[in-house]
Order: sequence, then structure tokens, then C-alpha cells
Amino acid sequence: MEPTELVERLRRGERRALARLLTRVEDGSEDVLRDVVRLIHPHTGGSRLVGITGSPGVGKSTLTNALVREWRGRGCRVAVLAVDPSSPFSGGALLGDRVRMQDHALDDGVFIRSMASRGHLGGLSWATPQALLVLDAGGFDIVVVETVGVGQAEVEIASLADTTVVTVAPGMGDAIQAAKAGILEVADVFCVNKADRDGADRTVRELRDMQHLAAPGEDAEPGWDVPIRKTVAADGRGVAELADAIGAHHGWLVEHGVLDRRRLDRARVQLRELALGVVRGRFAAIGDGDLVATLARKVADRAVDPYTAADELVASLG
Amino acid sequence: MEPTELVERLRRGERRALARLLTRVEDGSEDVLRDVVRLIHPHTGGSRLVGITGSPGVGKSTLTNALVREWRGRGCRVAVLAVDPSSPFSGGALLGDRVRMQDHALDDGVFIRSMASRGHLGGLSWATPQALLVLDAGGFDIVVVETVGVGQAEVEIASLADTTVVTVAPGMGDAIQAAKAGILEVADVFCVNKADRDGADRTVRELRDMQHLAAPGEDAEPGWDVPIRKTVAADGRGVAELADAIGAHHGWLVEHGVLDRRRLDRARVQLRELALGVVRGRFAAIGDGDLVATLARKVADRAVDPYTAADELVASLG
Repeated sequence: MEPTELVERLRRGERRALARLLTRVEDGSEDVLRDVVRLIHPHTGGSRLVGITGSPGVGKSTLTNALVREWRGRGCRVAVLAVDPSSPFSGGALLGDRVRMQDHALDDGVFIRSMASRGHLGGLSWATPQALLVLDAGGFDIVVVETVGVGQAEVEIASLADTTVVTVAPGMGDAIQAAKAGILEVADVFCVNKADRDGADRTVRELRDMQHLAAPGEDAEPGWDVPIRKTVAADGRGVAELADAIGAHHGWLVEHGVLDRRRLDRARVQLRELALGVVRGRFAAIGDGDLVATLARKVADRAVDPYTAADELVASLG
Repeated sequence: MEPTELVERLRRGERRALARLLTRVEDGSEDVLRDVVRLIHPHTGGSRLVGITGSPGVGKSTLTNALVREWRGRGCRVAVLAVDPSSPFSGGALLGDRVRMQDHALDDGVFIRSMASRGHLGGLSWATPQALLVLDAGGFDIVVVETVGVGQAEVEIASLADTTVVTVAPGMGDAIQAAKAGILEVADVFCVNKADRDGADRTVRELRDMQHLAAPGEDAEPGWDVPIRKTVAADGRGVAELADAIGAHHGWLVEHGVLDRRRLDRARVQLRELALGVVRGRFAAIGDGDLVATLARKVADRAVDPYTAADELVASLG
């Protein structure tokens, strides 16, 4: 099916069109990504993007499921993109989707999709931002991006999401790990899940202490006190309060013009990344072409120095 | 001192000028690198570049020292650049230099320098190629680049060196590790050091078996059988034969026109890397400039899609 038709069907709310577009984005070449993004981009920007992150074992899937239920109860349409950077295979991810979807199988207002990372520099799959655009264009009120692990990938998520929820569990030393990984700085909301376990209050205290210790970074938003919410996602305790905190952050973002600034920053970062990708692609395309060969010959013969040759190569891109 | 004068003094064989240029290259900004490389590049290409790599503990430093002694006995001037990707500090490296230099302290035909990796993507220091150019311009017959570890950094070294010596020790499972890390493919000469230990012959057999198992990669040079040499670097046994093997490989490179092709390939790769660096630098320079801000605004407002904006940004570089 032509991308144009797929996007039209996506706009009409057809789930199969949504699934197929995601598959194209995930498997597609740079050209496919371009085509799809060009078509859907005008229809994006309407969803609230919520990032949910934390180490394996803190109960992120259960928490996400519980949040989805809560948001559905409030009448929101919700999509979830679960990115698993540890798995190079999508088979497991697909099976996981089926299990996770059981709760919402008959609910047309919920869409859940897992995406295996391609392990691009160990970070987020490079197609993640584009997949989020597809879900955004799908007309969901809330789009959740969930990742496994604590590290660079989670910092990258924060740069994609409007609101980032950092999830920890009691007694896992997670607060410390999160601090080390630079996750504290990106949290808009903290969630201490499995809060019926021993040590939940201690974990809350640790997080609070570290918040006070952490020097406010350049990115710190003055005026937003990062709330800490306790949940027991398995039975739903505290989930409504967590959803409230996420909603309150969104409200704060909008009221203070921070949402616009964050999305502008994101656009700027994405622009540079894509432009570098374009350049890399052109260099690959002109790979053994005349100009590179000629310049390399001159450099090897010491007729021109490498920097001057590089300048010439860059100038040829214009 | 002006770079021009430093380079003149380098050409006259002044060791202090050499040391100072290396410091500038190591600590310097992109602009400094450019200046230095532009001045020295016409004087490079005369040195044989030998890479020595292998896991920690195989005795690379001792082996390098022994090779230096051997080459000195044959009347060659030798420089060594030891890159330690594991150390973010140069203090240890400097101390190490003094210890290593003791053997050659009064010898004007030997220059040894350690360089701490900046941990750029965990690989080689990005200034390594430029530092090698400085040593090359210093008029040494042989320039050795030595790295610690088995991994991506070693593969990168192979792309810088004319001849890559992969060093293993008996009973360390190194042959297997090297195979996993893709090091076998980049070896021009194998050295089994500490060959007085049990298991040396077994390690030789393992290497030979893996050579036969390994499908010849795209980069394989037909016609060169990678030799395996046993050494006991601590007392000098086998070092002359290893030096012979390295020399034989160089002779083969020259006779078959492979040296020229390799250096051309290297120039091509370096050209693209530098050009990407130039682009990245320009993007950073125009950081908050009008064009990026305008384009990001348009993307955030959905007036233009990110790919089209990226194309405009790239076009502006010409």
C-alpha cells in the first residue's frame, strides 16, 4: 500500500494502518523514514509524550499497564511504545505485546507496541523518534515511551518526552544507580513502585536527599519541584496520584511556556542529528566517486593536507 | 612559540620541538590541530607505521622495548606512541614514559610518548592520527603505535598502521578473545610473547587453526601468509625474527603496490571522518544562529518536516 493511503487510514483511526506504518518505520531505509515522516509530520504535536524509565525489575510494564487503565478511565486514548535496548530480536517483544495487550485487547483506545533496539551505539533505536511521530499522528491523547535500563538511553528518552517518569523500587540501590547514570537530572516525576515492600520510605528519603544534593543543572526548570509518588502498580494503589502528578507537570509545562521551549530544543537537536545523517549518507553515496578519490589521492601524495581536503568535500555538499 | 617555528625545529631533529608539538596536538582545539597538520603534512609519509596490539598482560611494552633495541641495532630511528584507552589521566602515562625511556635515555634515535585516550566513543583518542603525523614528520624510520586492549580501538589502529602486529600470550585464551573481537582479520603478523611459558605451542596451533577457519574477509590481502612468531621479549629471544617478519611484510606491501593502496584507503576514510567533523563543528558554530533557530521553529510548528529542514541546513554549508 502507498504511504499516502496508509497515512490517510491512520488519520481515520485504522489500527492496522498504524501497525503497518510502525513496521515500515522500524524496518525501513532512510528513504522510507523520510517519506513517512514527511506525510505524518503535519498531523503531529497533539499528543502528550510521557517517558517511563527505570532498571529491569522495578515493574515498569505493570506500572505502564496500570497507568493506561487509569488514563482510559479518564477518557484518554493511549499508545505505548516499549523500547528494549537489550534485545536485538523482536520475537520476544512481539510475544510480550500479546501478553501485555490482554488487559486492553477489546479496547480500541489503547495501542501497545514493542520495538527492539538496533543497538545503535547502545542507545535508543534510531527509529524511536519517528515511531513516536507515527503514534502522535494516530491521534492518541497520551503516547508513552517506556525503556528498560538505566543509562544513556534513558537520558535520550528524556529528550524525546514532555514528561519523564523515573521509576525505582525499594531496596534495589536504584536511587544510587540512577544518580550515577545522570537520571535524577532528567526526572520530572519520581515513582517508587512496589511501595508495599520494606524500605519504600527509605528509598523516598534517599531520592529526596539526592535531589537536594544534586546541583541544579543547566537544564533544571526553575519552579518545578519534582514530586515523588509511591505506587503498588500490581493492585493499582497510588496510580491515580501518579497520573495526577504527570498531569500536573504537563499543566506546569504549558502554563509556563516550557512545553514550547522543550519542543523547540528537541526540534533543534533532531535537526542537527538528521543533518549529520544526511551528510553521512551523501558521503556514503559519493563513496568511490571522483571527488573523494581525487582528494584522497592528493592527501596520500601529500599534495594537499587532510583538513583542506575535508573542507573541499564539505563545500561540495552545498 | 609559533607553530611554523616549532615545525622547522622538528624538521631539524629537535626533540623538544617534537614533544611540544605532540602536546599541542593532544591538548589542542580543532584549530590548533588544523594549523599543525597543515604545516607538517607535506613532510610526512616517510615512516613505516607499525601497530602493536594485544590484551593487557601479554607484555606489549616489553616487546616494544625489545623491538626498539633490535631496530636501533639495525640503524633505524624509532618513535613509539603508546595509547592507553583505559586511562583518562595522563599522569600515569607520563610516569610510565620515564620508566620505559630508561633503556633508551641517552639514545637520540629513540622517542617514546604515551597518550591518554580521551575515551571518545571508547575508541582511540581522536588526536592519535595527528600525533602519528607529527612523529612521521620527525623523520623516524619506524613509528610504532601501541595500544592496550583488544577491541574496536585495535581495529582502528590497524587502519592507521602499515603493519599490525597482534600479540598474545600462552594460556590466556587470547587467541579466542582476539577472534571474537575481529582482531584476527587485521593481523599482518602474529606474535606469541612469553613463549617460554607452558602452552606456547598450543597457542600457536590455535592461531593457525583460526586463521584457516576464518573466511578471508574483504580486506584480506591475497598473497600474504600471516606469519606467527614466538618471542620472549624479556630476554630478547625471537625478537630479531619478529623484526624480520615485520620487515618482510613491509617489503611485500611495497612490492605489490599494497602500501600505496592502503594509504589511499586510509586517506579516504580520514577524509570522510574529518569532513564529518567539519560539518559537526559548523553546526555547533551556527548553534543558536538564525538558520537553525528558524528551521527548528518551523519544525516545532509543523510548518516543515524535520528531513526537509535537515536538507536546508546541509545546503547552507556549501
